[in-house]
Amino acid sequence: MKAAFYHRDKKITVGDCVPVTPSAGEVRIQISHCGVCGTDLHVYHGAMDQRVDNPQILGHEMSGEIVELGEGVEDWATGDRVVVRPLAPCNDCPTCKRGHGYICPRLKFIGLDTPGAFQTSWTVPTQTLHKLPESVSLEFGSLVEPIAVACHDVRLGQVKEGERVVVIGGGPIGMLNALVAQQKGAEVIVSEINPFRIEMAQSLGFEAVNPKETDLGKFVEDKTDGDGVDAVFEVSGTSIGAAIMTQLLRVRGRVVLVAVHPEPREIDLHRFFWRELQLIAVRVYEAQDYDEALSLIASAQVPFEKLITDVRPLDGLKQTFEEMTHGADIMKVLLECS
Amino acid sequence: MKAAFYHRDKKITVGDCVPVTPSAGEVRIQISHCGVCGTDLHVYHGAMDQRVDNPQILGHEMSGEIVELGEGVEDWATGDRVVVRPLAPCNDCPTCKRGHGYICPRLKFIGLDTPGAFQTSWTVPTQTLHKLPESVSLEFGSLVEPIAVACHDVRLGQVKEGERVVVIGGGPIGMLNALVAQQKGAEVIVSEINPFRIEMAQSLGFEAVNPKETDLGKFVEDKTDGDGVDAVFEVSGTSIGAAIMTQLLRVRGRVVLVAVHPEPREIDLHRFFWRELQLIAVRVYEAQDYDEALSLIASAQVPFEKLITDVRPLDGLKQTFEEMTHGADIMKVLLECS
Repeated sequence: MKAAFYHRDKKITVGDCVPVTPSAGEVRIQISHCGVCGTDLHVYHGAMDQRVDNPQILGHEMSGEIVELGEGVEDWATGDRVVVRPLAPCNDCPTCKRGHGYICPRLKFIGLDTPGAFQTSWTVPTQTLHKLPESVSLEFGSLVEPIAVACHDVRLGQVKEGERVVVIGGGPIGMLNALVAQQKGAEVIVSEINPFRIEMAQSLGFEAVNPKETDLGKFVEDKTDGDGVDAVFEVSGTSIGAAIMTQLLRVRGRVVLVAVHPEPREIDLHRFFWRELQLIAVRVYEAQDYDEALSLIASAQVPFEKLITDVRPLDGLKQTFEEMTHGADIMKVLLECS
Repeated sequence: MKAAFYHRDKKITVGDCVPVTPSAGEVRIQISHCGVCGTDLHVYHGAMDQRVDNPQILGHEMSGEIVELGEGVEDWATGDRVVVRPLAPCNDCPTCKRGHGYICPRLKFIGLDTPGAFQTSWTVPTQTLHKLPESVSLEFGSLVEPIAVACHDVRLGQVKEGERVVVIGGGPIGMLNALVAQQKGAEVIVSEINPFRIEMAQSLGFEAVNPKETDLGKFVEDKTDGDGVDAVFEVSGTSIGAAIMTQLLRVRGRVVLVAVHPEPREIDLHRFFWRELQLIAVRVYEAQDYDEALSLIASAQVPFEKLITDVRPLDGLKQTFEEMTHGADIMKVLLECS
C-alpha cells in the first residue's frame, strides 16, 4: 500500500503506508482517484505548515470502494462505491447547534487536519460517506467534492434562471461555479488571464474576457446596457478581483465571495451602500450540496468531464503541484491511487 | 413665507420665498417641523456642492398639513396631516422595473436635487405622501423619515427575536436602528465614543461600550462566550468601524452597512470567507418601511421621542450644523418651519 507524503519545504515522497483498521462507525475505502485541489497546493507552498502535520498525507477530492467495515456499521457494505464529504465538526458548539457544523470553528478537515486520500486506502467515519450513482465512473466521481463546492456557492449566491453572472477567475472552482450557474439558467461571463483557461471557458460555452486586454467594467456595462450583472463570483483571490467585483453589479446585485484573500483588501463600501449590494461569503459544502452534485453528475447534462485534463499515477503529485504553480496548460488533475 | 437657504461655503440665510402653486398631481403642504439630518450636514460642509443647486433649500425629515391641492388630486384633502417620502425615481430603468425604484440610479432625492422642507410651505407630488395617524403630533411626526430608514435597515438586516446585535455609532440613525432592532426582540449593544450619546444609549436601555476605553472585540467575545453576535450595524462611517465589524460576528453573522464610507476601506475578506459572513448594504426606504415607521410611532411602544433634544426656530439651522459638527450635546434637532 502506497501513499504520497507532504513533508515541509515542497518535499513530496511516495512510500509505503499501513492500512488503518476501521474502528466502530468507520469504513476503509480503497481509493480509486483523487483530484489535486488548490488547498493542497496551498499546503505544498508551506502556507498551512502550522496546521498540517509533518509528514502528512493530503488529498480529499476522491472516489473509491469500501473494502472493510468497522464494528456496528450496518448501512454500508463492502463493494459500495462512495465519495467522502471530508468534514468533522465538533457537534457541540453554538455554530453546530445552529445547524452550521460544516463551518464549525473547531471543524477538522479530513485530509488536512487528519490524513487524506492520496493513498491506496483510507479509513473514515461513515457519516462522511455519500454513495456514487451506478452510472458514474469512479474516475469521474472524484469530481463530486469540487462540484459540491460550486453547488454550495451557487445556492448561497441565489443564482436564478435568466440572471447574468460574472465569474472572476477561471480555475477549476471558478469553472465549476460557471458550469453550475449556467445549469441554473444563468448567462455566464468568465474573467480570466490565462490563455489555456480562456480557451477552455469558451469551449464550455462561456463568454470569456481577458481583463488585461479588455476593460471588464466597460465590457459588462456595454453588455448590460449600463445596468450591471446580477451576481459576481470572486474566485481569483486577487486585489484586482476585489476592486472590480463591486463595479460590475446592478443595483442590489450580489458578490459571492469564494476565494481566499489572505490579506485585507481595499473595498469600495460606498458602491455597496449606493447600490445596496450584498456580499455573500461561501465556504465548503453541506450534505445537500453533495446530494445536488451527485444528482448533477448523474444527470450527465453538465460537461464536468471536460475539466479533467490529466490522469496521473500517485507519484505525479509533485509534478502536478509544480505545474499548478507555474500555470501549465492543466485544469483538473486526478491521481490514480490504487 | 420663510425659507432657510444653503449657499456655498457654510453660508445659510433665512429669507422670504414664494409658495409654489401645486401642478396636477401635486399638493402644497404647510410644514410644521423638519429635522436636521446628517445628509444636510454633509451638504453644509460642501461635500455635495456638485450635486446641490446654489442656493438650495434643504430638509426632508418633515411633517405638515396639506393647504392646497393641484388639479386632479382626489385622494387627499386640505387639512390632511402628512409626511413625505422624498424619493422621485425615474420609473423607467431596469432598477425601477425590478421594483427597486427607491434606489434607482437616476433617483431624484427631494430636498437635495430639488428644494426641501426647511421652509413655510412645500409643494410635492402626491405619490410621496403618507398620512400621519391622528394620535401622532406633528412635532413627533417629523421623526417618521429617519425611523423609516431604521425600519428598512433592520428589515433588510433580517433581525429576529432573541438575536444579539451591535450598533457601531450611536448618532440618530444608529440609535434608531438600535431602537427598532430592540423592538424586534434583539438584545442591542451600542458602540459609541461620545459621552452624551453613551448616556442616552444607556437611558434607552442599551448596553453602551466606549471602544476607546473598552476592547470591543473582547467585550463581545466575553459577552457571547466566544460565539459572536448575530448582526453588526456599521453606522459610524469610520475605518475603525469597518475594521472591527467583521471581528464581532458569529459564524454566518451579518454586517448591515448603513453608513456612508467615502473612501475604500481595508476589509478582512478572509474573516468573511472563514465564517461565511454576509454584508448587506442598505439605503433609504421603501413605502412599506414608511408604513412600518408610522405604525411603530403610532403604537407609542418605542421611546423615539427621547431622541428629540431640541426644537428650534428655522433660523437655528446654522447653529445646529455647527453644533453637529463639533459634537455638542444634541441628538435630533427639529426646526419649526411655520
